[in-house]
Amino acid sequence: MHTVKIGLIGLGTVGGGVIDILSRHHDDFCRHFDLDLRLVRVADRNTKRFAQLGLDPAICTDDAFAVTGDPEVEIVIELIGGTGVARDVVVAALAAGKRVVTANKALMATSGHELLKTAEAQGLELRFEASVGGGIPIIEPLKHALTANKISDVLGIVNGTTNYMLTNMAERGLSYDEALAEAQALGYAEADPSADVDGLDAAAKIALLASIVFHSTVTLDQVHAEGIRDLCSTDVSYAAQMGYAIKLLAIARMTDGGIDIRVHPTMIPAKHQLAAVSGVYNAIYVTGDAVGDVMFFGEGAGAGAAASAVVGDVIEAARALSSNNTVVGCTCTDEVAIRPISELETCYYLRMIVDDKSGVLARMTAVFAAHEVSLSSIMQQGVAKDGTAEIIYVTHRAREADIRAIIGELEALDVVKSIAALIRVEAL
Amino acid sequence: MHTVKIGLIGLGTVGGGVIDILSRHHDDFCRHFDLDLRLVRVADRNTKRFAQLGLDPAICTDDAFAVTGDPEVEIVIELIGGTGVARDVVVAALAAGKRVVTANKALMATSGHELLKTAEAQGLELRFEASVGGGIPIIEPLKHALTANKISDVLGIVNGTTNYMLTNMAERGLSYDEALAEAQALGYAEADPSADVDGLDAAAKIALLASIVFHSTVTLDQVHAEGIRDLCSTDVSYAAQMGYAIKLLAIARMTDGGIDIRVHPTMIPAKHQLAAVSGVYNAIYVTGDAVGDVMFFGEGAGAGAAASAVVGDVIEAARALSSNNTVVGCTCTDEVAIRPISELETCYYLRMIVDDKSGVLARMTAVFAAHEVSLSSIMQQGVAKDGTAEIIYVTHRAREADIRAIIGELEALDVVKSIAALIRVEAL
Repeated sequence: MHTVKIGLIGLGTVGGGVIDILSRHHDDFCRHFDLDLRLVRVADRNTKRFAQLGLDPAICTDDAFAVTGDPEVEIVIELIGGTGVARDVVVAALAAGKRVVTANKALMATSGHELLKTAEAQGLELRFEASVGGGIPIIEPLKHALTANKISDVLGIVNGTTNYMLTNMAERGLSYDEALAEAQALGYAEADPSADVDGLDAAAKIALLASIVFHSTVTLDQVHAEGIRDLCSTDVSYAAQMGYAIKLLAIARMTDGGIDIRVHPTMIPAKHQLAAVSGVYNAIYVTGDAVGDVMFFGEGAGAGAAASAVVGDVIEAARALSSNNTVVGCTCTDEVAIRPISELETCYYLRMIVDDKSGVLARMTAVFAAHEVSLSSIMQQGVAKDGTAEIIYVTHRAREADIRAIIGELEALDVVKSIAALIRVEAL
Repeated sequence: MHTVKIGLIGLGTVGGGVIDILSRHHDDFCRHFDLDLRLVRVADRNTKRFAQLGLDPAICTDDAFAVTGDPEVEIVIELIGGTGVARDVVVAALAAGKRVVTANKALMATSGHELLKTAEAQGLELRFEASVGGGIPIIEPLKHALTANKISDVLGIVNGTTNYMLTNMAERGLSYDEALAEAQALGYAEADPSADVDGLDAAAKIALLASIVFHSTVTLDQVHAEGIRDLCSTDVSYAAQMGYAIKLLAIARMTDGGIDIRVHPTMIPAKHQLAAVSGVYNAIYVTGDAVGDVMFFGEGAGAGAAASAVVGDVIEAARALSSNNTVVGCTCTDEVAIRPISELETCYYLRMIVDDKSGVLARMTAVFAAHEVSLSSIMQQGVAKDGTAEIIYVTHRAREADIRAIIGELEALDVVKSIAALIRVEAL
């Protein structure tokens, strides 16, 4: 039996889930893995959590660095979140020679490469399975089982909060504000929902996935991220009529022009498996040259799911530690450029409010034609009391730069009142 | 750079796929993993394959044991299949101190536990990711990322051939024989399709998955397996009318009475994600106490998919070898009984051909009532020219033993011409 001593920093819902698993399954881990996993030090600024979680006061502290500095601790679990103290904690833990497990996508998507190099140089592990897709095994399969492949695409639904909102906008016709209020009431969205609804959480996750599959170093600031804040239920409903679902997709693709990486509301065929991923569920699609398409699906949020991934990482680190196994190196060896979003080629859905005058359509289609962008469909909705009409265009594949130019020119037309929506369409 | 020398035995389609990946991605593996993977010895009884695959005659032999006995070879890939020579080859390779990678579910589901123990005792790896779900990472996630969970269920579609047939019976109304002929013409089914259509291939796979998730030793002979040979397109079509799809499901569940493990055609709700898994695709659903439901989906067959898993295993074994890492032990520590199929509790669909006489229904329902099995629906189809009618019963949850007794008593009734179909229904 190998005793492995663990320090845990951050006692939010995931931290509570980790404590629960470690205590309920302690004897199973002894029997199955020959591992006696002991929580020997716990830190949180909110000292009320200690009693709430039934922790022995002797192991509790409000000082995170008392955990990283504890000579007994062999594995540090960082669940503070964010890129401030969390970064200092991980740096301190590695400097003190400890293995680290984190669920922190923001940290890994900004400083991950440097932290992984630091860990590797010392023969230490830095594991982060919980940072993408909650409990869905995805980081490990990409780093191990799928390594025989040249991977061309990794994409999916990686933010449960927005997927919950989009599902309810589509299925129950809720507005964005109603969907957000409901998500907040249920605890799926924070009081300040920016990280979720502005696509930053998803951007951090796709940066991590892209770094692994393309053996490169992609950081959060390199990801073009658009959220769902401006999404109208009108467009959700038109999309459904046209046979599409709107999902906040995180996409990373290897192209001749570099890595195409982005997060934005995306119209996808209603029949595609990703369209059926509803509520807080996540799903990640991976395409490799040998394996073809594989998909990983599961709960993307929740204390249990994330804690499952964190404790899975702890067990892996403990196994390696107790076997004196060395760490298999970081594989970020390729330098691949990020393709600017202006070079993106995809299809576009545009909804415009225009004056219902004769010749309007002709003037607008002339703008598309001038940029050699062809249209796959044009749909005019009824005329409103104020004499305006709604026109929806869906283009064939076009360059983003051309679409941006077209929008600029359309906005300058006196008959065009507003560009009400621009949504990218992916055939998948 | 670590040079790792590989021997490959069996040059069928998967073997060809492995050679293709090792040659096309050789330089990538050097760059990304610091591994120079070299194929140094290859064996097949069909010596014509050597030239077909463009292999250097100097490394080719028709003697499998020339590969296992080659002192240069560090990792042996066994792709012979079956439990005869393949077993001797794996035993010989391990005895000679070599790491082994296999795609052989039949071997692993019969002698796997003994072989894994032999490997472990010598500090050697025996990897078998390709044996379940083609290229879908499933063995590794269950052995690693999901270990924090107490897993209650693992179930899914693990045979691509029968899923292709069932998809075409459902979508195009093909008969069993037509679907089989088409699958054979396309190379999805063998000339002798028994292993697929009788459910033995799926039984071997679910035995492997159950062994891992229940930390137990489940072998092929312990799995109750029924195939699709007797499945009528009539029932596929009735199932669709009732809101179900019929899939050949492999199921393993932990129950108070032991492990419930079985393979049989199963009616599942048409809205469940597994119902949407069509053609040769596979999908495996796992339920854990922390992670909730996760699903793994991908191509279950094909040279590329299986080769992806085999080479993934080779890379893992080579990484461990070059780092002098020891093997993390086999975790089959629990002795759990297999629950007899007679103790199964589920819902049942029964289709009977009866004489269309008054009082028939009353006599039949009395039989169900006598065994305290209640019915959730009764459907009578039109009367045929010969005066017989078709009656379909769907039961509420009932014990298999009771259903068997009921069938025996129904068959003894003079008005019952035949029990045309018995299909288990899972709510999932």
